[in-house]
Amino acid sequence: MRATYMYGAGDVRIVTVPDPVLQHPSDAIVRVVNACICGSDLHPYHQLPASAEGTSMGHEFIGVVEEVGSAVATLAKGDFVIAPFAWSDGTCEFCREGLQTSCLHGGFWNGIGGGQAEAVRVPLADGTLVKVPGGEDPALLPSLLTLSDVLGTGYHAAKSAGVNPRTTVTVVGDGAVGLMAVLSAKRLGAERIILMGRHRDRTDLGVEFGATDVVAERGAEGIAKVRELTGGHGTHTVLEAVGFREAYQQAVGVVRPGGVISRVGVPQYEEAPIGFGSLFGPNITLTGGPAPVRAYIDELMSDVLDGTIEPGKVFDRTIGLDEVPDGYRAMDSREALKVLVRP
Amino acid sequence: MRATYMYGAGDVRIVTVPDPVLQHPSDAIVRVVNACICGSDLHPYHQLPASAEGTSMGHEFIGVVEEVGSAVATLAKGDFVIAPFAWSDGTCEFCREGLQTSCLHGGFWNGIGGGQAEAVRVPLADGTLVKVPGGEDPALLPSLLTLSDVLGTGYHAAKSAGVNPRTTVTVVGDGAVGLMAVLSAKRLGAERIILMGRHRDRTDLGVEFGATDVVAERGAEGIAKVRELTGGHGTHTVLEAVGFREAYQQAVGVVRPGGVISRVGVPQYEEAPIGFGSLFGPNITLTGGPAPVRAYIDELMSDVLDGTIEPGKVFDRTIGLDEVPDGYRAMDSREALKVLVRP
Repeated sequence: MRATYMYGAGDVRIVTVPDPVLQHPSDAIVRVVNACICGSDLHPYHQLPASAEGTSMGHEFIGVVEEVGSAVATLAKGDFVIAPFAWSDGTCEFCREGLQTSCLHGGFWNGIGGGQAEAVRVPLADGTLVKVPGGEDPALLPSLLTLSDVLGTGYHAAKSAGVNPRTTVTVVGDGAVGLMAVLSAKRLGAERIILMGRHRDRTDLGVEFGATDVVAERGAEGIAKVRELTGGHGTHTVLEAVGFREAYQQAVGVVRPGGVISRVGVPQYEEAPIGFGSLFGPNITLTGGPAPVRAYIDELMSDVLDGTIEPGKVFDRTIGLDEVPDGYRAMDSREALKVLVRP
Repeated sequence: MRATYMYGAGDVRIVTVPDPVLQHPSDAIVRVVNACICGSDLHPYHQLPASAEGTSMGHEFIGVVEEVGSAVATLAKGDFVIAPFAWSDGTCEFCREGLQTSCLHGGFWNGIGGGQAEAVRVPLADGTLVKVPGGEDPALLPSLLTLSDVLGTGYHAAKSAGVNPRTTVTVVGDGAVGLMAVLSAKRLGAERIILMGRHRDRTDLGVEFGATDVVAERGAEGIAKVRELTGGHGTHTVLEAVGFREAYQQAVGVVRPGGVISRVGVPQYEEAPIGFGSLFGPNITLTGGPAPVRAYIDELMSDVLDGTIEPGKVFDRTIGLDEVPDGYRAMDSREALKVLVRP
């Protein structure tokens, strides 16, 4: 089959690899119907060291079950399923608490063969995959695809921050996850949602999703603007959907004393300020991490199926598998917001 | 009157200064009955730059109201009161939310004259001071004094971390605040409380306050020990009551995925690890800050008055004002756990 591999920064290729096969009784083989390129795929696109073997890419996909192992109990050939960006057994103590990204037996796709491909071997299929009731409705595919990562990730930011009707919200970043954070904050009842982003077409979509204010300025100027909009104090919650240190520092600048910064952008730094002058003095809480999207799929899927939300609007380009290298380029150059792939 | 000033690292002196006088209608003058030396006073004791003016010391005291300004409505001469370590108006938006350390008009004692003295001018007396029902009972004084800082600070750590009967707890540090964090975790129902400390007399008191396990090892060895005690995963909550970067890193090492680190030790660092390899990957929440002890005094005072808790046991030495310089030395050398001062 054809699959996407990255061989170093900026070096994405479509290669032919063996079809995936069942390796364990709990595996399933899924034919990919839709996959996509993630903002977090751009981090290796910038900095992956060159290698001859390459790295399998893609962690967001929806598809049809082709084959199941003998131990798979809840799925059958032909089921239309959503795959979250981490696989998990669904039964360990962390899964039972809804933290499937820390599953004792789970993992991430890039180690075993990613979703930007024609098919994927899914380990721990019963725990990992979620069957879509009603099967494959073409109009709903883009929105269902967001359940594999970006919608659940934006939702994790808002849930972890404790967003509710009484909390004001700043979202840092107008990428797909930032826009999903806006939609999620709105869904949780927030009435004031400030979106920090400087790409007009994206922030317009953010306004459609529920942002009440847009701040295009960055750094000190952006912080001053948010403070001006909030009586000088900043917002109760800040959802950081970028991952660069500058975005974290922006979050620190706009959070209200006693407030919460919730990070879902994968940090491209290890150390950052958390002392008296940043988090400690004003009693700021820092939370977030890789979203256990598996925990949110059921809840969010019902809103997608009944049309309450339409997160699939974040996709502004659709391509075939052979065009994936150009899809990376288009997302990296901000020519495309989020690219949907039909293998 | 006599008061304590610090003129540089290690240079504590008792000096004669003018008696405090009312400066604003909302002020009160309080004669100090008991004060004490705080673990956080040791930070300037180690690193305060030398100066000719010196810095007024002491932020924990209980005493008797001697005089009130014309705008003070709730207090009168003769009232026996507890002063929290920050003053606050009690009416601004942050005070109403219970975050008096971020009061829009509040501040800290060292700027205006501290509690290691014969008397103190207390600004915003109505918002700041809490009257003790029943007045001055000698047997209760040490425990009431802990309400001005260490008990409320330990309680803030436990409350912010969300300690409850289902959460396991590690307390990092066997100083007075660490021991108060143990007592607070016990009060909130925690059944498993691991105290990390290597001073046997202190950890013995920690066990009396509710610690179920003591880990004397530090660094990697201490982390391994806590993980061994908790099935390999660490505890749901970690209360960090030290403030050094090593203590933070120890907290990161013993917190369970999805858990909370709550800091109340004043950080002696600004930057520290918070990226994928520390907080982000396992979805760790970092919280805490200077405790709004004013918010907790009423609740905790009733437990002190009825004898449910006896936090005053942390004081293991009582001195007069003239002995305060030696009190600093004794606390710094770990000869004394916490020193009570009777001016």
